Amino acid sequence: MSDKNEKSTIYSIASEAKVSVATISRVFNRPYLVKEGTRKKILEICDRHGYEPSKIASAITTKKTKTIALLLPSFKEPPFMDLITGTEYELSRRGYCLNIFNLRESIEREAEIAKIIDNRFIDGVIFSSVYGNKKDKIFILEMMERDIPCIMVDRIIPGFNIPFVSSNDYLGGKIACEYAIENNHKKTGIITYDRSVHIFNQRVKGFLSILKKAGLEASFIFDIPLIFKKIDSSVVNIIEDIIKSGVTFVFNTSDTIAITLMRSLQEKEISIPHDISIMGYDNISYSDLVYPRLSTIHHDMHEMGKKVAEILTNKFETGIFENTKLILDPKIVKRDSVRAI
Amino acid sequence: MSDKNEKSTIYSIASEAKVSVATISRVFNRPYLVKEGTRKKILEICDRHGYEPSKIASAITTKKTKTIALLLPSFKEPPFMDLITGTEYELSRRGYCLNIFNLRESIEREAEIAKIIDNRFIDGVIFSSVYGNKKDKIFILEMMERDIPCIMVDRIIPGFNIPFVSSNDYLGGKIACEYAIENNHKKTGIITYDRSVHIFNQRVKGFLSILKKAGLEASFIFDIPLIFKKIDSSVVNIIEDIIKSGVTFVFNTSDTIAITLMRSLQEKEISIPHDISIMGYDNISYSDLVYPRLSTIHHDMHEMGKKVAEILTNKFETGIFENTKLILDPKIVKRDSVRAI
Repeated sequence: MSDKNEKSTIYSIASEAKVSVATISRVFNRPYLVKEGTRKKILEICDRHGYEPSKIASAITTKKTKTIALLLPSFKEPPFMDLITGTEYELSRRGYCLNIFNLRESIEREAEIAKIIDNRFIDGVIFSSVYGNKKDKIFILEMMERDIPCIMVDRIIPGFNIPFVSSNDYLGGKIACEYAIENNHKKTGIITYDRSVHIFNQRVKGFLSILKKAGLEASFIFDIPLIFKKIDSSVVNIIEDIIKSGVTFVFNTSDTIAITLMRSLQEKEISIPHDISIMGYDNISYSDLVYPRLSTIHHDMHEMGKKVAEILTNKFETGIFENTKLILDPKIVKRDSVRAI
Repeated sequence: MSDKNEKSTIYSIASEAKVSVATISRVFNRPYLVKEGTRKKILEICDRHGYEPSKIASAITTKKTKTIALLLPSFKEPPFMDLITGTEYELSRRGYCLNIFNLRESIEREAEIAKIIDNRFIDGVIFSSVYGNKKDKIFILEMMERDIPCIMVDRIIPGFNIPFVSSNDYLGGKIACEYAIENNHKKTGIITYDRSVHIFNQRVKGFLSILKKAGLEASFIFDIPLIFKKIDSSVVNIIEDIIKSGVTFVFNTSDTIAITLMRSLQEKEISIPHDISIMGYDNISYSDLVYPRLSTIHHDMHEMGKKVAEILTNKFETGIFENTKLILDPKIVKRDSVRAI
């Protein structure tokens, strides 16, 4: 009678105890449903075989797998790494595991993943969609139909009522412009990822609103595609136009664009911030490692990850979504890439 | 008789068919084990209720959850993002999901995660450990005891026989040094993460082996802690010593160190590569975005992720680990941070 743990299964235990598999599962998950005598007998058999219930057996009764899916538009931009880190930290603290899915900047992949998630080991979904616009509705409607709780992060779909945690991107844009004006910059330009993505549109609009208040206009707004591999060539393509424009300040809606722009200007022997001041957005870790250290807007993706994990797991416990429209305020980080003129 | 799918469970179906839950599960997963008549009857009941088996019910029979755990030392260094990307890509192609765990640069967290993985929804583990040395054995022994297949990636434990996919770090160090010598650099120095981590030790040893062949010695070797947040201050602390040493070439065992070093030298008005040539390691995406574009060693973490996923999932299908000691060769990437003297 010294069977090894590996050999005892819920089936062998059920067979020896002459009860159903479901009864064994209940003993461990809802013991109050099992008669005292039966429970004792089963626990004795389990003990003798060194059997411990697996989480799989538990899940079949509780229907909870304690696994959350996180969908990200890509794994390339460092802010997403911060988002993963914050989400994993909070989920782990609460006893949940994190399944991650890369949308690879493709809307078709959203549909593919909806199929995978359906009926898989997932209690809920954290969704940072490709576009943050109407195109992403299909995925969310699929989740709703399947009764899988879903919350968006760093993305919202304007006019569509689902829970989200996001950052006040309009405010971030305003803060960046106020800083430009404080430093007496009159001729400014903007480089942004595709403005059909809501958050980038907001950052640009916030910047323009302050410019307008000051009676100014942007000398240029360049939209570049939201594809990591194309950032370098996109920036190189517009570098001559930027130099010719005579701007003294460029606002970039991501640090990656800003870092690439600094390098492209430095290659043309333009000194930063002496000749042109550069402002980023995101506060990625590399923004503080490059030369000059990049001034930027701190957009706390780590905190957003923690918050979204908290709201979703609370929903599992209480049954309701609370605090479902959480908007965090960004902050300015002043370093060495902007100067007063 | 128009119950909704949500209301039918494996239990209600089993009860109506007067068979066990396990029989229902078998009908969907191993139908050949169920008598033709019983099978027909059950499928008819399922049909009537619109019941479709969940993956959870399937897992209790097959004991496969098609979920793989990936443990990473931290989520900070971009090469780990490439590793996640490659792993997720290949696993997804093969119908597997990816659970990720952040070891947060802590050996205690390895033990914590071993407990979580035990009995959870995980078929196998891909392990990029904190140190890549003997300290990580405990985790692996735990997995072995629980019969959970485990493979290491980007880390090996010298003298310990478990499957791994790694890069030839010794060769990478050699290639970096050959490039220095080709460009007539005689006075070189090295900055590396803690050499108690095998891979960094190998990169340094490879570099030194070629120096020795050329009758040369390194002017300095600085070890800095493998903690992302400390890279900046660690480099700043040694910057004066580096300048005073009079080296014309610095080999860094990571691009992050190299990028930070470049900035710290540029802040002292030292021109790169004119005054000092800088060589990185990893070929992270930012190495091509900074000024000057960083020359580095391409260490293909995306490919390593794909390979490790392939080997592990093949093991599930065939029952054996094949090709279990895979070492990929790194390549040099020549850009603008090294010049001939």
